[in-house]
Amino acid sequence: MRKEMTSMIRRIQEEICEVVGSLDNSEYREDVWNREEGGGGRSRVFSGGSVFEKAGINISEVYGSLSEEASSDLTGGSIPEGIERQFFATGISLVLHPRNPMAPTVHANYRYFERGDGTEPGSWWFGGGADLTPSYLFKEDSIHFHGSYKDICDRHEVADYGKFKMNCDQYFFIKHRKEHRGVGGIFFDGLNEMSKDACFLFVKDCAEGFINSYLPIISRRKDMEFESKNKDWQRIRRGRYVEFNLVYDRGTKFGLNTNGRIESILMSLPEVASWKYCHEPDVGSSEQEMLDVLRSPIDWA
Amino acid sequence: MRKEMTSMIRRIQEEICEVVGSLDNSEYREDVWNREEGGGGRSRVFSGGSVFEKAGINISEVYGSLSEEASSDLTGGSIPEGIERQFFATGISLVLHPRNPMAPTVHANYRYFERGDGTEPGSWWFGGGADLTPSYLFKEDSIHFHGSYKDICDRHEVADYGKFKMNCDQYFFIKHRKEHRGVGGIFFDGLNEMSKDACFLFVKDCAEGFINSYLPIISRRKDMEFESKNKDWQRIRRGRYVEFNLVYDRGTKFGLNTNGRIESILMSLPEVASWKYCHEPDVGSSEQEMLDVLRSPIDWA
Repeated sequence: MRKEMTSMIRRIQEEICEVVGSLDNSEYREDVWNREEGGGGRSRVFSGGSVFEKAGINISEVYGSLSEEASSDLTGGSIPEGIERQFFATGISLVLHPRNPMAPTVHANYRYFERGDGTEPGSWWFGGGADLTPSYLFKEDSIHFHGSYKDICDRHEVADYGKFKMNCDQYFFIKHRKEHRGVGGIFFDGLNEMSKDACFLFVKDCAEGFINSYLPIISRRKDMEFESKNKDWQRIRRGRYVEFNLVYDRGTKFGLNTNGRIESILMSLPEVASWKYCHEPDVGSSEQEMLDVLRSPIDWA
Repeated sequence: MRKEMTSMIRRIQEEICEVVGSLDNSEYREDVWNREEGGGGRSRVFSGGSVFEKAGINISEVYGSLSEEASSDLTGGSIPEGIERQFFATGISLVLHPRNPMAPTVHANYRYFERGDGTEPGSWWFGGGADLTPSYLFKEDSIHFHGSYKDICDRHEVADYGKFKMNCDQYFFIKHRKEHRGVGGIFFDGLNEMSKDACFLFVKDCAEGFINSYLPIISRRKDMEFESKNKDWQRIRRGRYVEFNLVYDRGTKFGLNTNGRIESILMSLPEVASWKYCHEPDVGSSEQEMLDVLRSPIDWA
């Protein structure tokens, strides 16, 4: 499974980079890196293109021994005594931040994790998901995005769209703001039902479905007209994206605590973010409409 | 002491707001707020002035019962069994982010804390300090800033400039970047030597010394000429400021975990921050000179 997953994510990275590069009319910078404690990765980041301010599509394969802190970030809590500290993790992670404020940021991440050699029950699992973060609400975008992942989930016995959608809303929640990061999508962790193969086929289907889930959205938003106040609002929303990633995101914390490659971990941060004191959208504005949905998630599928 | 400290910080807030307002030719927005669990504060924030992009000068007085998480943020580690959860805290916190990239951001914070009624030995303490975060290095600024706090420390038996300077370098360290946030200053916590009065007199001297420590610096930098690449670098450095505050700052974490007023806690974030993938200054540039000092702190006093 280590090999199968790694080879799948390498292929997906190629495919997505090709689509982004041709949309963006730009080229990525590639960095192949090694991690001192074991493993490494291949980061590809587009900067300053016409469609995306910043877009990173990274893969990594890391292994070694988990620190207590990293172990706790991973489980989101306490660590059982005497647990196996040797781990192996491979995954793909991508974040695309479009330039046009009408076009949503998208994030997806798929990973396979083993403790020890991954043969004991409960010692292996898959995690991941995909979620959409618009600054302005276009209902058809949310419906399309959610619908495409619901279709995938419905094809796999190991998947449960309703549960994964709820997980996503719960996970991407900026507690101190009482706001969700975006309009959600799916999120799952510790997926180890049925067999490795059954889980892998689902994860593969999700990863392969990414382009279809996002391409129609970015295509209809990337050239929309906008005003400078729309850009200001996008930057404020990107400030919230930064808050979520630095304060709550388990992947970011895990990366920082396992001596991961900083530039690869933090490529998820937007090119520009802004914080205005006590900013509140006007009542009845489209900014307010967006905020209402971020405060009370909707069932899109 | 609760009253004495609270009255001192109210006066200092007035004084500093007056200086900032006259420099900036602008007015603050004031928000008086109450905390559901006990206490409240008075936030004053300048936005969009001529000298400062954003400048917040806040005071607060909060009390109640500490959650386990907040207790742990406070001590930076584990919590002794059976410890008193009732607390009282009062303090002033300020962050000034100038517009001109040649002018440094400054932060200062002074607080008094009690567990229970603050009569038991070790149940009360003062904390605080002041530190400077330039984007470009002007040695005379660092020397003046450190010198002014060294002079204050030297006047008080409870203070030790050498130790507080080292604390500051250790505290304002962005571990994952292996960079310090700025050129430091002084930082102390858990200060409860000699008597409450002796500690208070030192803290009061620091708070009263703030204007003198920063005014000459901002005065000579606020109108310096600069290019757009200097502004870009300032935004990248402000991205680092955001990273420190959201990932490491104990005050920020404490605020988020004690249901503090979010806008007051996060007023410390800059108006604009930027993240560029793998940004490295040119060899021999003034940006590189700054970075070298952030990587290896200097003794300025």
